[in-house]
Amino acid sequence: MKLARCETADEQFWALVDVKTAMAQPIVGQFADWSPALMAAINAGDAARGEAELPRRGEPLPLSELRLLPPIEPVNRVVVAGANYAKHLAEDFGLAAPSQPVAFLKSFGALIGANDPIRYPPLTNELDHEVELVVCIGQVPVDLNAPMQSVLGYTVGNDVSARDLQRSGPKGIGMDLFAAKSQDQSSGVGPWLVTRDEFGDDSPALRMMLTVDDDIRQDGSSGDMTWGVAELLSFVEQRSSFAAGDIMFTGSPDGVGQGTGKFLKPGEMVEASIEGIGALHNRVSARAE
Amino acid sequence: MKLARCETADEQFWALVDVKTAMAQPIVGQFADWSPALMAAINAGDAARGEAELPRRGEPLPLSELRLLPPIEPVNRVVVAGANYAKHLAEDFGLAAPSQPVAFLKSFGALIGANDPIRYPPLTNELDHEVELVVCIGQVPVDLNAPMQSVLGYTVGNDVSARDLQRSGPKGIGMDLFAAKSQDQSSGVGPWLVTRDEFGDDSPALRMMLTVDDDIRQDGSSGDMTWGVAELLSFVEQRSSFAAGDIMFTGSPDGVGQGTGKFLKPGEMVEASIEGIGALHNRVSARAE
Repeated sequence: MKLARCETADEQFWALVDVKTAMAQPIVGQFADWSPALMAAINAGDAARGEAELPRRGEPLPLSELRLLPPIEPVNRVVVAGANYAKHLAEDFGLAAPSQPVAFLKSFGALIGANDPIRYPPLTNELDHEVELVVCIGQVPVDLNAPMQSVLGYTVGNDVSARDLQRSGPKGIGMDLFAAKSQDQSSGVGPWLVTRDEFGDDSPALRMMLTVDDDIRQDGSSGDMTWGVAELLSFVEQRSSFAAGDIMFTGSPDGVGQGTGKFLKPGEMVEASIEGIGALHNRVSARAE
Repeated sequence: MKLARCETADEQFWALVDVKTAMAQPIVGQFADWSPALMAAINAGDAARGEAELPRRGEPLPLSELRLLPPIEPVNRVVVAGANYAKHLAEDFGLAAPSQPVAFLKSFGALIGANDPIRYPPLTNELDHEVELVVCIGQVPVDLNAPMQSVLGYTVGNDVSARDLQRSGPKGIGMDLFAAKSQDQSSGVGPWLVTRDEFGDDSPALRMMLTVDDDIRQDGSSGDMTWGVAELLSFVEQRSSFAAGDIMFTGSPDGVGQGTGKFLKPGEMVEASIEGIGALHNRVSARAE
């Protein structure tokens, strides 16, 4: 099932999406209200029951009349667990495969929805893209013996990065991941969560593509992660525990501008897509002042 | 004036604190409700009017019956702008003074109140302290030509850090500041915000002390910051903009365990205090499993 966070002129709400009819059925309440029963049903192997029992209100609305928001509420965390594709590290950064992942936080204000413009931040000249599988945590605490039981579902992320700022961190401290990756209104997430039952309980191996004006820049698979979803969840949970509704980026495959020299330019259309989930379509804006 | 965020068995609320009577007068509403009028009064040079017009409810409550929470709501960001005291970098880390600050995000779940226990995280053997001046942002967007106009007030922070985890970041990426500084229930903030009118519009020069079981470990001054509050606010705002109610740590002076080898141990009482604001009293718990 597909769960979107939507916006109209009046309100923001969660909705159950039917892509065949292109309609979205509003769900009653916030993530904390409906996710426990849904997680219980998914973990019991009965996602259909979980879907049937989601509390609904009103009539289905055409997707075309809704803004798709990032599928996360503002109180939740955006965790990025990166350094997770050896070829990306080697070819794009010249780095050896690390012995463990690295995690950091992205500002909620850095997120944009599936069809929103990417703000071009004023301080950078090297705006870059990173298509990533994004995990939504639906049940906490994460059980270190069964971390996948905490996964509600998956979505697509574009971890937009200002590479020159990433390199601007003080010597001895390291990359400035905050300046690089928390720029306002930069990182697309969406278009919706697809629940875990559609992928099985292993770390999913899904084709991930990113195009810029139809030029293929990234073409990888989440099956090439160094650490799978379960290992990343455990890694983060032991350092700083998840809340229900948090999301976690899981790293980018190779092919980014850092390696190719092809950085994003104002006016370009960026499409990031993952097999079985959907696509983001975000156009790069003119440079912010 | 002193503004605390308080908890009783029933609720969490903001309150106006009178330290002479040790009473707290509950304020009506959330930060977004009462802060605009208060900021306007402070910026007009009439904090007394702002205080008089704060919407109140009920009777004052004894501070002794309240839990003092970190003075921040869960939807807000905890920004840490560090590398801001040259002696700390040189003596504790052997690092040269950087050409610019470094900023990162701390998880909200890492925060504890003024009298809460410090959780000793299971993965570290080098739990350390950092007394820091913490700024509360009351008005946004931050005006880069007058950033101090965004400051509602100041509080005390202890940016508790797991040093061995801080060094565990992958080579070429840098310090793992997430693992080091976002450990659950570790970092004291409080006991309350003291509004900017009590310190003037320049970056305040205040004595900052940290003791462990009455042994003085840190004794510095916020006047020794490399970059003052205005410069830090501008630095962060240009990279990832503030929301009203966000807080910003401003770096630690020297004297931490990283330099002295005196790390925190279970059972120790840590007191972090700043002149004109107040003190945190947080005892280190037994190691978490």
